[in-house]
Amino acid sequence: MSALWDSIFGATVVAAATDDQAWLQALCDTEAALAIACRSVGLVDASVADAVVQVCTRVAADGPGALGPESAADGNPVIPLVRRLRDRAQEAYGPSVAAAVHLGATSQDILDTAAMLVARNALVVILAAVEDASAACTSLVRTHRDTAMIGRTLMQQAIPTTFGAVAAGWGDGLDLALRRLSLTRDGLAVQLGGAAGTLAGWHPHGAAVRAALAGQLGLVDPGTVWHTERSRIAVLAADLGVSCGTFGKVATDIVLLSQDEVGELRERSGGGSSTMPHKHNPIAAITARAAAAQAPGLVATVLGAMPAELQRGAGPWHAEWLPLTALLTAAGGAATRLAESLAGLQVCTDAMVRNLAGTDVPPTGAAEIAAAYLARHTP
Amino acid sequence: MSALWDSIFGATVVAAATDDQAWLQALCDTEAALAIACRSVGLVDASVADAVVQVCTRVAADGPGALGPESAADGNPVIPLVRRLRDRAQEAYGPSVAAAVHLGATSQDILDTAAMLVARNALVVILAAVEDASAACTSLVRTHRDTAMIGRTLMQQAIPTTFGAVAAGWGDGLDLALRRLSLTRDGLAVQLGGAAGTLAGWHPHGAAVRAALAGQLGLVDPGTVWHTERSRIAVLAADLGVSCGTFGKVATDIVLLSQDEVGELRERSGGGSSTMPHKHNPIAAITARAAAAQAPGLVATVLGAMPAELQRGAGPWHAEWLPLTALLTAAGGAATRLAESLAGLQVCTDAMVRNLAGTDVPPTGAAEIAAAYLARHTP
Amino acid sequence: MSALWDSIFGATVVAAATDDQAWLQALCDTEAALAIACRSVGLVDASVADAVVQVCTRVAADGPGALGPESAADGNPVIPLVRRLRDRAQEAYGPSVAAAVHLGATSQDILDTAAMLVARNALVVILAAVEDASAACTSLVRTHRDTAMIGRTLMQQAIPTTFGAVAAGWGDGLDLALRRLSLTRDGLAVQLGGAAGTLAGWHPHGAAVRAALAGQLGLVDPGTVWHTERSRIAVLAADLGVSCGTFGKVATDIVLLSQDEVGELRERSGGGSSTMPHKHNPIAAITARAAAAQAPGLVATVLGAMPAELQRGAGPWHAEWLPLTALLTAAGGAATRLAESLAGLQVCTDAMVRNLAGTDVPPTGAAEIAAAYLARHTP
Amino acid sequence: MSALWDSIFGATVVAAATDDQAWLQALCDTEAALAIACRSVGLVDASVADAVVQVCTRVAADGPGALGPESAADGNPVIPLVRRLRDRAQEAYGPSVAAAVHLGATSQDILDTAAMLVARNALVVILAAVEDASAACTSLVRTHRDTAMIGRTLMQQAIPTTFGAVAAGWGDGLDLALRRLSLTRDGLAVQLGGAAGTLAGWHPHGAAVRAALAGQLGLVDPGTVWHTERSRIAVLAADLGVSCGTFGKVATDIVLLSQDEVGELRERSGGGSSTMPHKHNPIAAITARAAAAQAPGLVATVLGAMPAELQRGAGPWHAEWLPLTALLTAAGGAATRLAESLAGLQVCTDAMVRNLAGTDVPPTGAAEIAAAYLARHTP
Repeated sequence: MSALWDSIFGATVVAAATDDQAWLQALCDTEAALAIACRSVGLVDASVADAVVQVCTRVAADGPGALGPESAADGNPVIPLVRRLRDRAQEAYGPSVAAAVHLGATSQDILDTAAMLVARNALVVILAAVEDASAACTSLVRTHRDTAMIGRTLMQQAIPTTFGAVAAGWGDGLDLALRRLSLTRDGLAVQLGGAAGTLAGWHPHGAAVRAALAGQLGLVDPGTVWHTERSRIAVLAADLGVSCGTFGKVATDIVLLSQDEVGELRERSGGGSSTMPHKHNPIAAITARAAAAQAPGLVATVLGAMPAELQRGAGPWHAEWLPLTALLTAAGGAATRLAESLAGLQVCTDAMVRNLAGTDVPPTGAAEIAAAYLARHTP
Repeated sequence: MSALWDSIFGATVVAAATDDQAWLQALCDTEAALAIACRSVGLVDASVADAVVQVCTRVAADGPGALGPESAADGNPVIPLVRRLRDRAQEAYGPSVAAAVHLGATSQDILDTAAMLVARNALVVILAAVEDASAACTSLVRTHRDTAMIGRTLMQQAIPTTFGAVAAGWGDGLDLALRRLSLTRDGLAVQLGGAAGTLAGWHPHGAAVRAALAGQLGLVDPGTVWHTERSRIAVLAADLGVSCGTFGKVATDIVLLSQDEVGELRERSGGGSSTMPHKHNPIAAITARAAAAQAPGLVATVLGAMPAELQRGAGPWHAEWLPLTALLTAAGGAATRLAESLAGLQVCTDAMVRNLAGTDVPPTGAAEIAAAYLARHTP
Repeated sequence: MSALWDSIFGATVVAAATDDQAWLQALCDTEAALAIACRSVGLVDASVADAVVQVCTRVAADGPGALGPESAADGNPVIPLVRRLRDRAQEAYGPSVAAAVHLGATSQDILDTAAMLVARNALVVILAAVEDASAACTSLVRTHRDTAMIGRTLMQQAIPTTFGAVAAGWGDGLDLALRRLSLTRDGLAVQLGGAAGTLAGWHPHGAAVRAALAGQLGLVDPGTVWHTERSRIAVLAADLGVSCGTFGKVATDIVLLSQDEVGELRERSGGGSSTMPHKHNPIAAITARAAAAQAPGLVATVLGAMPAELQRGAGPWHAEWLPLTALLTAAGGAATRLAESLAGLQVCTDAMVRNLAGTDVPPTGAAEIAAAYLARHTP
Repeated sequence: MSALWDSIFGATVVAAATDDQAWLQALCDTEAALAIACRSVGLVDASVADAVVQVCTRVAADGPGALGPESAADGNPVIPLVRRLRDRAQEAYGPSVAAAVHLGATSQDILDTAAMLVARNALVVILAAVEDASAACTSLVRTHRDTAMIGRTLMQQAIPTTFGAVAAGWGDGLDLALRRLSLTRDGLAVQLGGAAGTLAGWHPHGAAVRAALAGQLGLVDPGTVWHTERSRIAVLAADLGVSCGTFGKVATDIVLLSQDEVGELRERSGGGSSTMPHKHNPIAAITARAAAAQAPGLVATVLGAMPAELQRGAGPWHAEWLPLTALLTAAGGAATRLAESLAGLQVCTDAMVRNLAGTDVPPTGAAEIAAAYLARHTP
């Protein structure tokens, strides 16, 4: 959430989906959907629910203002937000609407569910970038199915392959990332439990309210409460982390193949230097590597926060917010930078031929690897 | 792989599935299955393949001996193992059998596939322990569906719940772990690519050899090479890490509820102290927490090793072996210790009543949470 | 760098020392100091150096503007910043001053040295918060030197201690953090090497320019180049991480002793709940725990980035910027929240007496522990 | 503690300093020293203390046997060890000697202090390996002070340097590691607090017993109790982690400069391949990288375990043992493998000349960098 670092690490767009305003919007959307869900079981009148929705829309539009400082006393933004919503409801519609705000819910219900909305919006950005990277890969496979190059194992020349087979390997990883992140996005679930996870505040309609909330927000109904069973958060973090590893692998290969002495790849618009005008640094791949390198530590933080105490973590819950946001921006940034690198990648076939000089065996099997990839990517 | 620490952290059984002998067996099983797979496409005669299988069986039975020191020069155990297999084949059957050993393969094919066999065997142990823990949980839910206790959020008394609902929440996490780890086990795939990932050594039968190898070993045919697309390894590590988080959450709750001042739970055979005879430490839960706490850092190590360079990582590949083994033992140990804790858990309903003294509201909704869990666990 | 999360995690002040403007200022300060250092060895005329300093001052005052987007192409902010400085110098003073900007330096020289300035400014904030926490601790030790309470090991009652001894243990950790972070602050060193770490651009005055740069900025002259020997960065990160562990330990104890069933501590202004008006959550300690919990993963990221390739890391270098910034804010936030918690801590001696009921031994030795601590803290 | 992995990762020697027998010896040495320390303040008669020492010697010599399984019930090895010592003392010398065993101590006193002994012994091995690596580096600097080679930044050719300057940069890192690890070794402190950290069991001689224990074992007297102030453990872990980063950096450079297309370095005895007889893999550097890559995650685990609850962590304390042991073996292994790589490094000056072909500037300043390094390493 720094214009400087976000720009460098390709995260400008995804950062907008995870900044304070994005969180405010997601929190207000959740409160609005809760009112509608309560209406669906008869806990709130239709007109009251509509009024709550109006209030949520307006409070979201007002922007966060001093929501941060107001959140410090109680340790989460939902408490001052509910105050804002109730004050506005009271003022505009009177006490019955004010009383219907946040009905039956606890802060964690709203914040956890809002986190899923933030994640979904960020995943849209991330997936679009991965699709761009995947498409660029597929184009490289198609063009270079038969372009022989030396394979390198333990960073030493091994036997020949083709650049098409190498790029197909990259594409396989991106396909797995797309599948995994799409599944994750489609499985994002509302969290609703009330003060101690018993759905007491909507009794006996708790399960119905949860289902309606999920339907309203386009999220999954998990069928259980997960206020302190954090594996959903952890799996989301892990999926982002694994995807970053895939992005980092491709970016590392691009950087290695772009070394002057290897010379097989070259980014279209390489980065310059403050001292050396001749430099043509593969800066998109380099910054993709750096963005991706943020992930392992952040995943460890989320996993380390899983043991939330009893019915709501006294620290572990709060510890999720920063690394989850950072993982979404890291993954979005790395995918974006990688897509840039791949989209403009110049393949120096002369260098590939030159580097094959020590070998007289053909790249047996490589074209089939590429062909099988292409068969999986027929439009 | 220390008798001392393994015993303390519940990992004795799972450690036996991941020790040097277990790796040797898995490596030999892979070489044997490869010979059979090569036979299936006509690359090796049936009698030759049978002889290779015999050799593999005998070399595995001989034990690792000095396999470690022999592995140092080349950096992986497959190279000296192949020497052993070929020497033994030559001696017992002559050059045609020796030549059929390791046919077309590279070290990584054998080691990666063997790692999947090691993981599968360890997962059998882990899953059995999680099932024990889950069964103990279900029993607690059944017995205590209606046992009211105070819910605690941010480690402060909140509103009432029941111990059945609390244990159902634990059980939900264990169910997710069971499902995730079972899926992971069922998805473990062979890795076969040859020297540079082009299946050159079995051309044009590479895909068929891979499919046969998978069938022979009871692993999945991934349809692609994944020598440097390590998301399968990373997902395995992440699944173990997320599961450890779930185990750690339950263990943390047990430790918290066993505090003298709370007194709601008590392990049957609590641990003693070297100085304080009155101590009754919930040592199974404590050591489960400690075993589970190993996971986040180890997952970070595996994720950090994903960017394997070009056609075989020069360090990143090797960096996977220790943390993967450690994650399997940590997960197996944590699950085992947790199952012990849960199986002998004494529920002190008097204390639960006493700690509810400040509250006069009933545990609305909690019994339904427990009932829904039980409905999902009807035998 | 989000007003929302920074407020919750106590990081508002330290975030101002590490935001985009703070980085811009530090980068400009480094470029200005470099001009003066070059003047000191005669590479630049005095009037030219003074003009460069003027330009740096003005460009810093203008704010970052679009520095982020401008940095994306080359992957670091120094390149567009040098363009800005040279354009402004050309415009205001002509080519000789423009040519003196960034003389002999490479981007990494400026960015690494600026990072040390950012770290120093953030450490001032962090150390002030730790001193506040330490002072609050000392006050607790003084007041409660003889206040008996039960000691708890493995979260079970053990033998008596005093609250003074417990708080002295907290204070010992804070003292170590103060000493370690002060030493770290005092050891922050300039980094100057030029394009490939040979000091070529200032030859034969390189060592003298480095010494003068250090003197000008109040940083240490390391006597060597450390462009790709990143242990200074790693030690800084590790010191922040260890300090966060200390803060987290104290905060954890406060949360545990504030449990209703224990009741020995109580934060003055506890946090509320969106549903439960009776809640008095120890929210300062809770958010201190959560801020501190960010550190281990971030330290792992910085350690993982140490192996920077050859003469400037192609990703590892860039990967340091986010976690270093995040570690400074996490440490500052955790220390600030902890100081708040400690400063308003209410000690419930009645509860301490009540919880001692099961014991009839005195807190032998505890008062001496507290007294020894106080002797080390005589004003 | 696997012969297989230890051999590959260079950890055979250091593993012997951290295995079950090494821990048993350190635990017994601590119990013996405690008896002598108690004698020094008159809590135990001289003849009784001598008898305890004899018993400790014999029990250590017997080996761990079933110490692991015996430790499971109480969660640490000290409890069954004290039983063994008392039984043996009773049998050989009668009740007065049995009563003097473990006098006043709690399990953690013995285990923490033993951990410091284990660390010291492992650090001896580690430091010797780092000294070997440093000496090999110095030899390279001396021989190649003026050997020009191209510098590479962001993995692209930049401006010339010399191999002497590059190796001096490596040596600088090793020097910092030597200094840091030596300081750490010299600062290892006994931990003594008794059941709740009040030194109650030796009152009023607690501080004197601690000082005598430190003197007896050659460790530092910390002047305080640190049973739950774990920054000493964390700093040890962090120092090992930072050192691993330094080792990994050097190893990475060796691997990069050994690429066929670069060809500037070559390990004397490169590793082979199971399929490609022409391969000459820089396997010592590769396995050094892999060993070093274990560290960041393990450091995160130790840092994450710092918040030990109240007077003895219920899990966090236990969670330190595995990663601390693993960090010692990783650091020892990485340093050993790196020393091997450096000691046999062949410098291909022809390739260095060839790779300089695109440049006509001299390596200005580089010889001075190397000379300054050599001046710091005059025998």
